[in-house]
Amino acid sequence: MNSETHHSSVAAQAPDHGLIDRLASRLGVQGLLTDAGDKAPFEASARHGRGIARAVVRPASAEELAWVVQELVGADASFVVQGAATGLVGAATPSGSGTQWVLSTQRLRDRLEIDPVNRSAVVAAGYRLSDVNRAAAEHGLTFPIDLGADPSIGGMAATNTGGSRLIRYGGVRENVLAIAGVLANPPGARVGSTRGLRKNNTGLDWTQLMTGTFGAFGVVTHATLKLHPVQRQTAAALVAVDSAEVAMELLCSFEDALGEFVSAFEGMSGSALTAAVEHLPGVSAPFPVAPPYAVLLEVSSAVSKASGLDLESILMGWLETQIERPGMLDAVVDKPERLWRIRHAISESVQALGKLVAFDVSVSRSRFAAFRARSVELIAAEVASALVCDFGHLGDGGVHLNIVVAPETSADAIVRLRSKLYQVVVEEFDGSFSAEHGVGPYNQAFYRCFTDQPTRALAGALHAQLDPQGRLGNVRLD
Amino acid sequence: MNSETHHSSVAAQAPDHGLIDRLASRLGVQGLLTDAGDKAPFEASARHGRGIARAVVRPASAEELAWVVQELVGADASFVVQGAATGLVGAATPSGSGTQWVLSTQRLRDRLEIDPVNRSAVVAAGYRLSDVNRAAAEHGLTFPIDLGADPSIGGMAATNTGGSRLIRYGGVRENVLAIAGVLANPPGARVGSTRGLRKNNTGLDWTQLMTGTFGAFGVVTHATLKLHPVQRQTAAALVAVDSAEVAMELLCSFEDALGEFVSAFEGMSGSALTAAVEHLPGVSAPFPVAPPYAVLLEVSSAVSKASGLDLESILMGWLETQIERPGMLDAVVDKPERLWRIRHAISESVQALGKLVAFDVSVSRSRFAAFRARSVELIAAEVASALVCDFGHLGDGGVHLNIVVAPETSADAIVRLRSKLYQVVVEEFDGSFSAEHGVGPYNQAFYRCFTDQPTRALAGALHAQLDPQGRLGNVRLD
Repeated sequence: MNSETHHSSVAAQAPDHGLIDRLASRLGVQGLLTDAGDKAPFEASARHGRGIARAVVRPASAEELAWVVQELVGADASFVVQGAATGLVGAATPSGSGTQWVLSTQRLRDRLEIDPVNRSAVVAAGYRLSDVNRAAAEHGLTFPIDLGADPSIGGMAATNTGGSRLIRYGGVRENVLAIAGVLANPPGARVGSTRGLRKNNTGLDWTQLMTGTFGAFGVVTHATLKLHPVQRQTAAALVAVDSAEVAMELLCSFEDALGEFVSAFEGMSGSALTAAVEHLPGVSAPFPVAPPYAVLLEVSSAVSKASGLDLESILMGWLETQIERPGMLDAVVDKPERLWRIRHAISESVQALGKLVAFDVSVSRSRFAAFRARSVELIAAEVASALVCDFGHLGDGGVHLNIVVAPETSADAIVRLRSKLYQVVVEEFDGSFSAEHGVGPYNQAFYRCFTDQPTRALAGALHAQLDPQGRLGNVRLD
Repeated sequence: MNSETHHSSVAAQAPDHGLIDRLASRLGVQGLLTDAGDKAPFEASARHGRGIARAVVRPASAEELAWVVQELVGADASFVVQGAATGLVGAATPSGSGTQWVLSTQRLRDRLEIDPVNRSAVVAAGYRLSDVNRAAAEHGLTFPIDLGADPSIGGMAATNTGGSRLIRYGGVRENVLAIAGVLANPPGARVGSTRGLRKNNTGLDWTQLMTGTFGAFGVVTHATLKLHPVQRQTAAALVAVDSAEVAMELLCSFEDALGEFVSAFEGMSGSALTAAVEHLPGVSAPFPVAPPYAVLLEVSSAVSKASGLDLESILMGWLETQIERPGMLDAVVDKPERLWRIRHAISESVQALGKLVAFDVSVSRSRFAAFRARSVELIAAEVASALVCDFGHLGDGGVHLNIVVAPETSADAIVRLRSKLYQVVVEEFDGSFSAEHGVGPYNQAFYRCFTDQPTRALAGALHAQLDPQGRLGNVRLD
């Protein structure tokens, strides 16, 4: 299919009254992509297939973006907002209809301003996490949300990303001081601010309505982020235990003794650990025998060793007090980057084992061990071939239940398993069916199923106010 | 006026179709107060005069509260929700009309459950901050919002209180995991949850809509709070500097060197310091000459000295590197409680000096020094007699500009000063006219003046959904 044919076939479905020409004329060749080859990268999603974009619009400033939204809404067009397209639930991918536009924030990079006295940064939606951290590092500062991907700041704000260091810093919600955005109604209205206020109690917090609602109520153009001092020393250990129960006891002891130094507490099943070690070239197994469960724990400090604080010896001192704990099998203190390399390899190594079925759920920490036992049992009963390689952020109760199933497992069996497991996490354990990844077309049906009526009515009132015609995104929260 | 007369005169204004009898019959004598003497404590506000309550309803459980709301809305009654009545903007005080009910959460104490593994607490609205901290301390935990008053947990959630340790822990918003509440529409509907999830990305965050909106959208019945480890060592110093500019330089250096140990950085003008010291019995001036500006800085740690960490010597070591800083006049390291006693005495000591005019504002930290200079100049130009005794939380840009004016200063002059100062903070300095105290009848007019149209339209949509008849509270955000 060449792009001309594609263009005209879609145009026939959705006449745009000269919209393409107006956009091209104001935004230039970089600002509007209609060629199939140019559009292709914007039509892919990380886990759930491809869509078809009517066209890709890439404004380079908030003014341009507001104008684009006005034009799109005026032409009765619907659109998805896309940052770095690292999301896992398909929320930034256009549908397969060919009528939906992609509004990319990739070129929205008009501001990246570090305020070292305020310890904050005003960042345009199109910058990536790594861009912010590079700029902040020049001032001894960091934006400490730690993720496997390198998402755009707009996407991080819209999806309230979490990551491995939430136990210390919280997620995006706790680290965003302000959001500026553009509404679909009134079309192109600019709202919010870039103010770097830490205290402001003057009513409805617009920032909170834009954070974690996946762009359903408006397009994030800028976020003002809290920055934290960079860490000057880090120490880490990998600890083998005989059960998740013991891992949680260890967590409480760790926090009690090491308080504000605690920066990560990541759990992994023996099978996840084994998969990662076997997948990594040149890495030998940390323990002579693969344990039932292992924990990567980390402490870090912004205070340098020169001040007299030696974090590694404090960590070692505490580990010595724990070594007699019943159920504690072994402990290895190593360079943090070596231990993190194993932790970060889990996701990819599990995928390499075969057909992957992934869950991203969370429960209260006090119910984690019971939930884990219950879900392992459920998975075995539903799909006999399943190898459970779970791992996650035990410090905040978030768990990635990644499982590998035999290639011949039917789609029906997977759908049934997913439904049952979500029911267990939400209804039996008062947990969340989506801890970090958010809601997108991929899991919208579960959102409907598990969200109470008053919350959906409230979301409906917001949709009615902010996007009455449903032009914005492909997630509905009502 | 005896209570019988009062009761019948009000009843004549607002017939309640047997409501009083129904409430009395279900809630009992503790649950419904109609006698003038019993009602009196619920009709007072901390700073802005008294109101008149139609009656005071005190349900003792969330079930009772939901039923009460249903009855009140059904009888066309309007009501204010009141916790410990420690707020400073009159939001919990009934109007003077005599038709408004007080819905007190004082007896709503059905749950105070500490979950030590999850580091969280489910707390009914009527418990106070001190109750939570007493219960949490048994598990080595604390809810670290540090305030002058001892508010109820429901009030803290509804008003998103801040305090002196926000620099380290954030405010209520960053420390509330869930809120459960009751709506006025559908009348008495129970919404939200008490789930202790740290990661949950499933759409609209009900908790965020109830936090910091002063009860305008619903009544908070329970909050699930994050707890933190108690601090096992603390060290503090009082530093005299020659200007607010130097104070902010010192803040950056302090955070850079002492990172996660930083737990407070409180500023005070020389006049505030002098007033506090003279007010306190048995306290001698910390400096031989009152400095232009002073800073109370504090570090603390959950890690005990036994681990090898000695916070006082780390603080002393850093202070030695600062002593040659231009503009640094003097520094005193003392027992933290002694220094905090001075800081906490400021508010009361300034009131004792004469007629008080108080501002609670915030700006970005990078603009604090310029804002302070501008506001001192403005105050002097408007009210020649004014003695500015400003103090505040420099670590988060929050400032209490408390000033003492001559008794003969006209009300008009004060109104003019307030308007001009708020205009300066909001319009010239991109700040907030209410950093901590929130919006109530007392400053509702300023809310109207400084809130943009899209935000008010959004609040209007929420009011239309959640309280279409305006029965709830005496704050309108639309």
